Amino acid sequence: MANLDQYRKFVQEIIIELHGYNQGNLNQGVDSQMILDTDRDHYLLLDVGWQDKKYVYAVFVHIDIKDGKIWIQRNNTEINLAERLQVKGVSSSDIVLGLHSPFLRQFSGYAIA
Amino acid sequence: MANLDQYRKFVQEIIIELHGYNQGNLNQGVDSQMILDTDRDHYLLLDVGWQDKKYVYAVFVHIDIKDGKIWIQRNNTEINLAERLQVKGVSSSDIVLGLHSPFLRQFSGYAIA
Repeated sequence: MANLDQYRKFVQEIIIELHGYNQGNLNQGVDSQMILDTDRDHYLLLDVGWQDKKYVYAVFVHIDIKDGKIWIQRNNTEINLAERLQVKGVSSSDIVLGLHSPFLRQFSGYAIA
Repeated sequence: MANLDQYRKFVQEIIIELHGYNQGNLNQGVDSQMILDTDRDHYLLLDVGWQDKKYVYAVFVHIDIKDGKIWIQRNNTEINLAERLQVKGVSSSDIVLGLHSPFLRQFSGYAIA
């Protein structure tokens, strides 16, 4: 049985850690934001702002918790978030690679939904 | 002087209203999410999920509150969010069109930062 409070803690730990790396890497004018909506269980890491004359709007990581499972909705990094979650103790059957199609998920070793 | 609690209420009212419209308009497999991080003052509306064989990941609206001002960071709708905020009673000097460049903002009638 999933321990939701633990799952929330694990997901937030990952976002906070990546946010820490990201902040050291930013241009003036660009904000690195971590978004932790613990009421609706949405967790994001993104950059937003102006770098010279270009607008930067980039969501790097988006993880949700729904129906007791952790959904990886977006991962524009080379960090394997599912593996990180497993190291923390999350069972593969409680992780859904939302960013892969439902068809492909059956070959992932993780939950389909 | 900005009333932050009121500003938070106004921004959330807008996100909740748009989320309501959006939910009636969705394909199965696509979630319409509203993200309300009142601790860090980030407010988003986005779609995420699979529509047939296509992955949908679309942030429609992103509004922040920082340093007492309301920043419109993203608006992929035809709704004028700044006007909506003004109708609710937010002064134009407390609204920043973050999605416009700092240069263009000086002609916007809203705050530059």
